Amino acid sequence: MKRMGAWIKDPQKAEVSFRVFAYDKPEVNLVVQLTDQVILFPMTEERPHVYTATVTGLGLDLLYKYRLANDKDFPDPYSHFQPFGVHGFSQVVNHQTYTWHDQNWPGRDLEEMVIYELHVGTFTSEGTFRAAAAKLDYLLELGVNTLELMPLAQTPGRWNWGYDGVFLFSVNHNYGNPDDLKYLIDQCHQKGLAVLLDVVYNHLGPEGNYLPEFGPYFTYKHETPWGAAVNYDDAFCEFTRQMVLDNVTHWIENYHFDGLRLDAVHAILDDSEPHILQEISQTVKKLAAQQGRRLVVIAETDENNVKLINPIDQGGYGIDAQWMDDFHHCIHTVLTGESDGYYLDYGRIKDFEKVFKNYLYTGEYSRFLKKNRGTDASTNPGKQFVVATQNHDQVGNRAQGERLSQLVEFPYLKAAAGLVLISPYLPLIFMGEEYAEKNPFLFFTDFTDPDLKDAVVKGRQKEFQRFSWGEAPNPQDPATFYRSKLTPRTDWEAQNKFMFAFYRDLLALRRTHPVLRVLDKFNLEVKVQEELRLITVRRWRENRELIALFNLGQGNQPLPYPGTHLLNSEWPVYGGSVVGESQILTPGNLIILERG
Amino acid sequence: MKRMGAWIKDPQKAEVSFRVFAYDKPEVNLVVQLTDQVILFPMTEERPHVYTATVTGLGLDLLYKYRLANDKDFPDPYSHFQPFGVHGFSQVVNHQTYTWHDQNWPGRDLEEMVIYELHVGTFTSEGTFRAAAAKLDYLLELGVNTLELMPLAQTPGRWNWGYDGVFLFSVNHNYGNPDDLKYLIDQCHQKGLAVLLDVVYNHLGPEGNYLPEFGPYFTYKHETPWGAAVNYDDAFCEFTRQMVLDNVTHWIENYHFDGLRLDAVHAILDDSEPHILQEISQTVKKLAAQQGRRLVVIAETDENNVKLINPIDQGGYGIDAQWMDDFHHCIHTVLTGESDGYYLDYGRIKDFEKVFKNYLYTGEYSRFLKKNRGTDASTNPGKQFVVATQNHDQVGNRAQGERLSQLVEFPYLKAAAGLVLISPYLPLIFMGEEYAEKNPFLFFTDFTDPDLKDAVVKGRQKEFQRFSWGEAPNPQDPATFYRSKLTPRTDWEAQNKFMFAFYRDLLALRRTHPVLRVLDKFNLEVKVQEELRLITVRRWRENRELIALFNLGQGNQPLPYPGTHLLNSEWPVYGGSVVGESQILTPGNLIILERG
Repeated sequence: MKRMGAWIKDPQKAEVSFRVFAYDKPEVNLVVQLTDQVILFPMTEERPHVYTATVTGLGLDLLYKYRLANDKDFPDPYSHFQPFGVHGFSQVVNHQTYTWHDQNWPGRDLEEMVIYELHVGTFTSEGTFRAAAAKLDYLLELGVNTLELMPLAQTPGRWNWGYDGVFLFSVNHNYGNPDDLKYLIDQCHQKGLAVLLDVVYNHLGPEGNYLPEFGPYFTYKHETPWGAAVNYDDAFCEFTRQMVLDNVTHWIENYHFDGLRLDAVHAILDDSEPHILQEISQTVKKLAAQQGRRLVVIAETDENNVKLINPIDQGGYGIDAQWMDDFHHCIHTVLTGESDGYYLDYGRIKDFEKVFKNYLYTGEYSRFLKKNRGTDASTNPGKQFVVATQNHDQVGNRAQGERLSQLVEFPYLKAAAGLVLISPYLPLIFMGEEYAEKNPFLFFTDFTDPDLKDAVVKGRQKEFQRFSWGEAPNPQDPATFYRSKLTPRTDWEAQNKFMFAFYRDLLALRRTHPVLRVLDKFNLEVKVQEELRLITVRRWRENRELIALFNLGQGNQPLPYPGTHLLNSEWPVYGGSVVGESQILTPGNLIILERG
Repeated sequence: MKRMGAWIKDPQKAEVSFRVFAYDKPEVNLVVQLTDQVILFPMTEERPHVYTATVTGLGLDLLYKYRLANDKDFPDPYSHFQPFGVHGFSQVVNHQTYTWHDQNWPGRDLEEMVIYELHVGTFTSEGTFRAAAAKLDYLLELGVNTLELMPLAQTPGRWNWGYDGVFLFSVNHNYGNPDDLKYLIDQCHQKGLAVLLDVVYNHLGPEGNYLPEFGPYFTYKHETPWGAAVNYDDAFCEFTRQMVLDNVTHWIENYHFDGLRLDAVHAILDDSEPHILQEISQTVKKLAAQQGRRLVVIAETDENNVKLINPIDQGGYGIDAQWMDDFHHCIHTVLTGESDGYYLDYGRIKDFEKVFKNYLYTGEYSRFLKKNRGTDASTNPGKQFVVATQNHDQVGNRAQGERLSQLVEFPYLKAAAGLVLISPYLPLIFMGEEYAEKNPFLFFTDFTDPDLKDAVVKGRQKEFQRFSWGEAPNPQDPATFYRSKLTPRTDWEAQNKFMFAFYRDLLALRRTHPVLRVLDKFNLEVKVQEELRLITVRRWRENRELIALFNLGQGNQPLPYPGTHLLNSEWPVYGGSVVGESQILTPGNLIILERG
């Protein structure tokens, strides 16, 4: 399919070309907004339902919309920038003007990744790309090496998590402009940080989604939590499919992203062959090969289905890695005792023996879903799974947006971090977690459509009916957004500093110790003593063996193994009062030993 | 899961056991209808939503229903017999009473199969299993070796194609009782005929479907042509899944079927892992291994997706073979010139070059579907594809139910048969086709629900709006059923006899010739001369080569190759006037040569 959207054909001649899919319209016009006038350009129907036009001599960064037959003007589904928000004009972006400095960036191998999930709007008080770029040295100090930016597609209003995006190709103007984003990524690469982007291909936001005006981008063949499904397999699906594959290429080529995190792929419904997820993974592999880059695709899913991550010649989709919610849920329920909603299926400390090596649900019956759940992942390598104690969903989709730091006591909070970082999986840290941030991460929106404002408030209440969490703050209240911002480091309290030191040292150990550097779940054994609530994780490689002991009980326990103490979560540097090689595991205590 | 339905626990003690899934009912009772009284047995809730009871000393062939909490009585979803139709009592069936005589039946290999599709109700004037059994010698004379019975599950009213079945385990009482069916299959096996059963797991009929009273057997997660989808992947799907797998076992074990034809698997929607289709194929493979039988599973699909038939370790579902509609559509459109509805995508004689070796649509754009269609099947063996010039759908889903014999002239009708029987695929013959039956096969129903009667008539009219076929006969009119019955052989005209001889001889050639015996699509080449409308099919094996020439043009053509004439469709025995080894291909003529 030919190039869609708007692009600069010849910068010298100021030639800008446009191509758009507009289904079953008697005519389509291009509307260009100049400073003092609006000019209408009739578009040519190049083939059925596809219209083109070229504009010369009016400048490059044109503001434009498409006028469909009904005389209404709509922004471009392929818009690269919406400087006035979701309802305003699209702006042509010249991707040749930014001068990159990341020629020496070698990329990042999947297995090395320590991911830091970041929402640009709340990561800094300014909430911009430029402000985020100024905090990168802090992340280097912490020891993460990969950023994952929550979605950047244009959203309605002044703030949003990002999952209500409606222009897949546009850079959210609340955070800056396209060059600001390029600057952030360029800075990351120069400092050795990879950058992943969270992209949403399972639905579009409820406000400013003009795709249905242009054509059948949605289908009622499948049901999703957001209503009609994105059309990947019904009539005219070629346009949706191409849009998504173009979008994958767009972020990687124009913005130098090192990979993508695909949001909720279980809601990307496609009965055709090949599945769009397979085409996405193939597109990224092809780009990596063509450009000699290391690129990854990571899928968010709650389905425990190895089909996503298995090779294509084994019937898989060839995605590099996926989120593993089971690991989170085990930690969360064992530490908090919660059993609301989907937490019903968890809560047994014994489950750690399995979940360090496989999904917890590999075909067993789920009481929450009332059906069997999952497939066997015992032979898939550890680097195919991303685990976390917290992430934007698990925190933000609680009524009060509490982080784990508000739910469990400090020693156990450190143990939780240890379970993730000692695991043979890819760790993900949700911004703020690394210093036990106490501010919540709430669900906030800024819809402008009056009906929607009302619906989102009611919807949120309904969402929490199955949990016993009380009433949620109003997502539309500006205070809900501002309360969710991270605390500046200058305002940190002692506990914040202890936690930061603990994460920093654990990450350093993970990076430097030969047993932990490799994500090997096969030379690994977990034993759980249920009565004592003691978890023992043994990992070994060649002649070296490492033991991590987690006392999740309420009392002291004698240390059952001798060895060199590499780390004790109760050392004073981490806020505890234990000195040296203690032979006691205090409540919540994690001790990491090297044997032999 | 424990055994569901009703079964004889101990025939000596007249102990009959019952188990039923009844979701969220305060209580469930078993209602037993004796000659002079009704007895109510309270059932025990064995585990949540599963109820059992055992009845002793009242006989074995009990008539029963289940009384659900709302005080209404419903037949058993697992009923093996509905002697009074879909709304009446279920009857317990004793599967130990019939004495089988098929101990020496060796089964049939997939690759050998020549399938004869048969609707029991219209195959004979009586329309019963016993009457069908009396016609088996005729089928042996023809030379088919495998029967495929259109669905037998109980349907509403006195007649039905079978696709409105509502009790998956029951033997349609319009055709006889369970022992009559066993007799038919036993006779087949003793005469060397395999028997396949068409089973419908994608929907249930609209009248007498009481499954929703019992529990969530349906889900709105997916859309199907029949409304809500059968629940294979939503809450409580274990009960539906088990019912279907039990049903597979039921027909193979209790009735000795040699395999199943799965109706419209593209409407069996399952996002869970493993897909229910994979579980079906695994269940049948397991039964075959346990019992030392040859069993096959064939899927009807319009999706051209090799996933169905690929091995499980390559990400497939492991089904043995599938229908290939593309082959039918090529023949039908080239011979009739029709281009209504889905025939829009066909009609090019050149397509035979591809469709003898692969699907026609292997990813190309379908103008009818407005999207790309199909996967590549070039490496799948020929025995994985069932082809036909006619079948119940392609004939019966025309407004006037015309067979191909009413649409094309006799010489071309013979050529059509030749295209199927010379192909490297599994041939399927739709009953009556073998003697150019002129009676239609119409869509007939006998719904008793007044609203439904009306709806089915209107629905049928709507179905045909996209075709230019005029108004269809009323499906509810008894004459529509009676007009669809086959002509008794005693009433055959000359042309019927010529056609029968032609099929008989072609089948014999296919069975005996070493090149044709093997379904080898790799040692095969098809050349089409478009101007002349001449199709040349070359097949070879070791030192032997066979050429089939089809003149689909309007004029005579010189025979382009020398060779021994094995068959000429215009020999007098087939109704033509050509004698011996003619060097001319007359219009519609098929000549099969052996070279060298």
